[in-house]
Order: sequence, then structure tokens, then C-alpha cells
Amino acid sequence: MSKSGDQKYMARALELAEQGRGFVEPNPMVGCVIVREGEIVGEGWHQKFGGPHAEIEALSAAGQAATGADVFVSLEPCCHQGKTPPCTEALIGAKVARVVIGCQDPNPQVAGNGIASLREAGIEVELIADDGSAHRLVAPFAKLMTTGRPWVIAKWAMTLDGKLATHTGDSQWISSEASRAVVHHVRGQVDGIVVGKGTVVQDDPTLTARPSGARIATRIVLDSLATLPMDSRLVKTLDQAPLLLVAREDAPAGRLSSLQSIGVDVLSLAMGDHEDFIGQLLDELGQRQMTNLLVEGGATLLGTLFDLGAIDEVHVFVAPKLIGGQAALTPVAGQGLAEMATALELDEIEVNVLGGDVHIHGYVRPR
Amino acid sequence: MSKSGDQKYMARALELAEQGRGFVEPNPMVGCVIVREGEIVGEGWHQKFGGPHAEIEALSAAGQAATGADVFVSLEPCCHQGKTPPCTEALIGAKVARVVIGCQDPNPQVAGNGIASLREAGIEVELIADDGSAHRLVAPFAKLMTTGRPWVIAKWAMTLDGKLATHTGDSQWISSEASRAVVHHVRGQVDGIVVGKGTVVQDDPTLTARPSGARIATRIVLDSLATLPMDSRLVKTLDQAPLLLVAREDAPAGRLSSLQSIGVDVLSLAMGDHEDFIGQLLDELGQRQMTNLLVEGGATLLGTLFDLGAIDEVHVFVAPKLIGGQAALTPVAGQGLAEMATALELDEIEVNVLGGDVHIHGYVRPR
Repeated sequence: MSKSGDQKYMARALELAEQGRGFVEPNPMVGCVIVREGEIVGEGWHQKFGGPHAEIEALSAAGQAATGADVFVSLEPCCHQGKTPPCTEALIGAKVARVVIGCQDPNPQVAGNGIASLREAGIEVELIADDGSAHRLVAPFAKLMTTGRPWVIAKWAMTLDGKLATHTGDSQWISSEASRAVVHHVRGQVDGIVVGKGTVVQDDPTLTARPSGARIATRIVLDSLATLPMDSRLVKTLDQAPLLLVAREDAPAGRLSSLQSIGVDVLSLAMGDHEDFIGQLLDELGQRQMTNLLVEGGATLLGTLFDLGAIDEVHVFVAPKLIGGQAALTPVAGQGLAEMATALELDEIEVNVLGGDVHIHGYVRPR
Repeated sequence: MSKSGDQKYMARALELAEQGRGFVEPNPMVGCVIVREGEIVGEGWHQKFGGPHAEIEALSAAGQAATGADVFVSLEPCCHQGKTPPCTEALIGAKVARVVIGCQDPNPQVAGNGIASLREAGIEVELIADDGSAHRLVAPFAKLMTTGRPWVIAKWAMTLDGKLATHTGDSQWISSEASRAVVHHVRGQVDGIVVGKGTVVQDDPTLTARPSGARIATRIVLDSLATLPMDSRLVKTLDQAPLLLVAREDAPAGRLSSLQSIGVDVLSLAMGDHEDFIGQLLDELGQRQMTNLLVEGGATLLGTLFDLGAIDEVHVFVAPKLIGGQAALTPVAGQGLAEMATALELDEIEVNVLGGDVHIHGYVRPR
């Protein structure tokens, strides 16, 4: 089979994998295509956490046709018993001839073992040199696996003169309805939506996905002293999505128990500076197996995440408006970097005009 | 002739007019197309300040074919003796049948008189309902004519998190070479390039157009106390473009005369707050018949212009970089507006990706 044929089938496997976004986490998204004599005889993807893996779905679709076939799978097949039996065994049992893999399992304790098992069974295995898409697809899974912290998607809307709000703090509405629709779509795919207390006070947001998406994210509010008003929209919509209040350990106990009594989940963290506090939070959310967080502001929270090097992906909406103001907030506060030459670069920039706004999406290039 | 035919010829007249950009100011850009029996028999545009007007160029190209023809001209023909004789007389003399006009002369003392002269001579005259392009083309001319102040094009480059510089003031380089090439192109079309002293201290810019364009802009530096270093690039390039230093009336006289002695033009303005000072400057530059200014920062100058409502057009370059920093400068300082709902809106937004940067161009919607 030609190399360009391999690339084509891998692209299809990645496309299939993508359909699992929001449904499979904390598992990785995986897609699989089985090809025999130049024809696709089976396709599958990991559809839901706990459900069959992509390879199993594709083998099941291919049936007897899998014998002697080429298998394209976006991620190295698992070789361990998890919620489901190892995929390597299934591939070996089906007598496939060759397995082409998009990227190795990023889990350092697994990486390469699936490949080794297949080779031991006499199956030809190739790791395809792709354009990075296969790694990109599992990057949040890889981050959680290797660092214990979730993938952080930062979102902000700003004016064309770089302001998150006016000098009085007013920010409604910077962005267009079309831009907000993108945000709702992302909200429906992540495990947690995080905001600082200031954003709650200023905007009284609901932080739900409308319409709802693949999963219901936990709304996470940083509220050191647990002053979240009982009549805030976040509290009033407890029936729609979980709410996690992150307080300092010295927050008033009575206040915490009142919140807990109405169904608010409370996380108490040791005091410390901004970076300590947010670092603890990321560790805790990682332990809860949250793969993706969407952080919607404000500037202080985004600044702390920036200073921690914790921002992985950004959605920025630039509205064609000018508001001016020396004292107006800019999207990312924190300490920041001193030299422009050391700025974090973004990769795979996508630019779209949405209802007048310019939507810029990209991934932070790892250092 | 059909209406869509009219629109087509007017679009051509506007296209021709555009070729005069940078060459004709403080005159307006004008284009003209002469059509007889569905064929273009003459075209012309105002090519250079002091040279023949568009109508004269087009009539000359058409010769005898102008008799009984339709004339499409982007701006109302002049009816007064200026540097050249009135165009209305030339059109009447050529016995054209109809004149279609893109927009009235914005000079309130002229508006409509050219049209009236043509009608008195029995020529059919129509003011075309266009998409605003004809007005857009002469907007800087119209501003100078009606307010006595130049059209202000503001330019800034910022990071994706809305920063003009790092918290230490470092801004080199935010934008890509491709973005800077656009700036050089605009520099070559304007009468003045304005910066605050801080920008000179920080970046030591040359502020010339490279390659050179239609006209050589005067570099204008706001430098209240005339502290511009003799070894700055602005001073060292006095042979390439004029330099106007704008000082307060109490700036050290010795310092001013040293600068003047080496060829720096000096403008002394009465003291006052930022808005008074910049207001005086705009009036003075208007009196000097400067039609277009490009303002390249910094944040304080752009903020003052914003507060004065003096910004007419913007070129913003958003670099796919994050720098962070509560204390990092944002592009437009000043007082700013208090409510997001009152933000200045931009019209005719154009978005292009240039060497990785997002270039956003638009016009401030008049209030």
C-alpha cells in the first residue's frame, strides 16, 4: 500500500476518533479503519467512556474480512486489561497483517508495549509520520497522564484595543452571539468550567452549555472566603449542572455548610499565593480525572494560569470595538514575561470571522 | 442604461480614483469613466495634486466620443476656478448627455453647486445610490474640509492577550515582517506619522516608509520638553524625511534652537491637559493641509486621541503570542468609556492573516 494511501486512512481514523470528543474522557479519543485490498472493510471509534475501544468496534464491523487486513488506528492499541480486554489480543486473534499507528500511548508505563505485543505475534507494525494531528488529538489525555493536571483551555473576549472590560468593569457584551455560541459548544465538551469570583460578581453567569453538549461540566468557582450569593444564577441552576466552590481552608465554616446543604460541592485548599492556590486546584481536578477545563476568566485567574505555564489552548474573540481606558482590564494579568522575544507562541492558529468578531483559536507551543 | 450598468461604471471610476491615493492630497481622489453606447470611450483619474482633474483626463481620452455620452465621476465635478478651470464647464463644452455622480462635494460651500451648474446647462445629473464606497474614498478630504483636522489612522500591534508591550516596556517585535510591510505601505501614503516621546525612547524608530511610497510623510514627535536625543534615528535620518518636534511653549529655548539648527522643524504649543495639547496639534496640522495622519502610539497618545473622538480608522495587528502581565501596557490608554454598550464600533472590517499575525482593518463608525 502506498504511503499516501496510509495517510488517507489515518486521516479517516482521526476523523472517526474526533466523534468521541466529550464522550470518552478521561479515556483518549481513538479511531480505527480496517482496509483490505484497498477497500475499507471496517470502521470504528471509541464512542463512550467504558464502552468498546475503536479497534473492537472496527473489527466487529469487518468480521472475517479483518484477516490479513491493514489496520489504521490513531493511538497505539492497549495491551492491558482495563474496563475492556486488551485490544492487542483482539487484533492478534483476528489475524490482521499490519497495524499502522498514529502515535504511541503517552502513558510512559504503557508506551511501546502495545506495539511490542503485536510484533511478537508476527504482525507488522508501523508508526506513521503524521502532521501532528494524532498527537494533537490525545494531547489533553497525555497531559493528564504525564502531569496529573487537566488540559486548560482559556477563553476570553476582548475589544480591538485589548480590553476585557471597561474601566468600570463592565463587560456585557463584548462578543457577538455567534462567538458565544462557540463558547457554549466548548462548554459542552469539557469536564470543568472555571471562573474567578470577580467574574461571578460582575456578570452573574450561569456557565451552562446551551444547548447541552456531550457532557455536563462542573462549574468551578474560585471563592476564597465562600461569599457566593445564594441568589446567584450559579446557585439557582444547581439542578442543571454541578457547582464546585473552591475556598481557602479558613473560609467561614457556617457559610461552607450552608452552601453544602443546598448541594454545592466544596473544596477547601491551603492558603498560599495565587500560584500555590491554583496549582493545588489543578492537582485536585486532575485527581478527579478531569481531562479538560475551560477557563473563562477573569484576568487575575488567567494571569495566574499563564504564570504557571498551565494554559494549553486558547479561544480568543476580538470584537470590532474600541473602549479605551488606562484602567480598563486586559485579559491576562499575573506577573507576565519581561521580554517580548520570550512570549509564548501559539501553533495551528485558526482565524474565523463570527458575527463580526474575529475568533482566533490556537495551541500554546510547549517550551 | 441599466442601473447595474451604472453601478459597474461607478465601481470602475472608484477603482481609478484609488490610484491617486497619496499623490493627490489635500485634494480628494477622483475617478471618471465616459461611456457611449455601452462602451467605455474614456477613463481618467486625478493623478497628482495640482494636475488635471479626473473629468479632464477622461474627456481628453474620449475626444469627440464624449458628445452625447454618459459620464461617471466618483465625486461631484468642481464648478470653481482652482488650480485648474472648473470641470463643469469642460463637461458642458463637451456636450455630454448625462453625469452620474458618486457623492456630493463634502465642502459645504460647494456641495450641490456643481450639480446645479450641469443641470442648468441641460445635462441630466444623477447622484448614484452606492454602497458607501464613494463617500469612504473622500472621507479624509471631507473631515479636513469640515472640521479643519486631519483624518487619523491609528495603528498598533498587540499580543493575543491585548498587550502593546511587556510589563517592562519591551515591544520588539510583536508583529511579523509581513505586518510591518503593511505599515510601511501606509506610511508611504500619509502626510504625517505621529508618535509620543515614550515610543521614541523605547524603540528608537526611524518612521520612514521602506520602500518609499507616493509621498514622504513628516515624522511628528510629541516631546513636551524637547529632550529628543541628537543621536536618535529620527534625527540621524533628517535627510530622508522631515521631522517635526512638538513641544510645550516652556521647553528649553536652547534645546529648541539646537534642534532647529540641524533641520528639525519645531512646533510650540500652549500647555494644557493631554486633550488640549493634542487638540491644538490636530488643528495646526489641519491648517498645514495634512489630510492623513498615521499614529503609531504609544498608549497614552492613542488614549488621548480616543478620548477626543479623533480616531477614524484603525490597523490592528494581533500576534499569536501571549505575554501576560497586570502591568503590561494595553494599546489605548486615556480615560476610556465606562459602558461596553457605548463602545466605538468599527465598520467595513477586513481580516487577513499576515505571516501568522491577524491584521484587522476598519473604520470608526461616526456617532
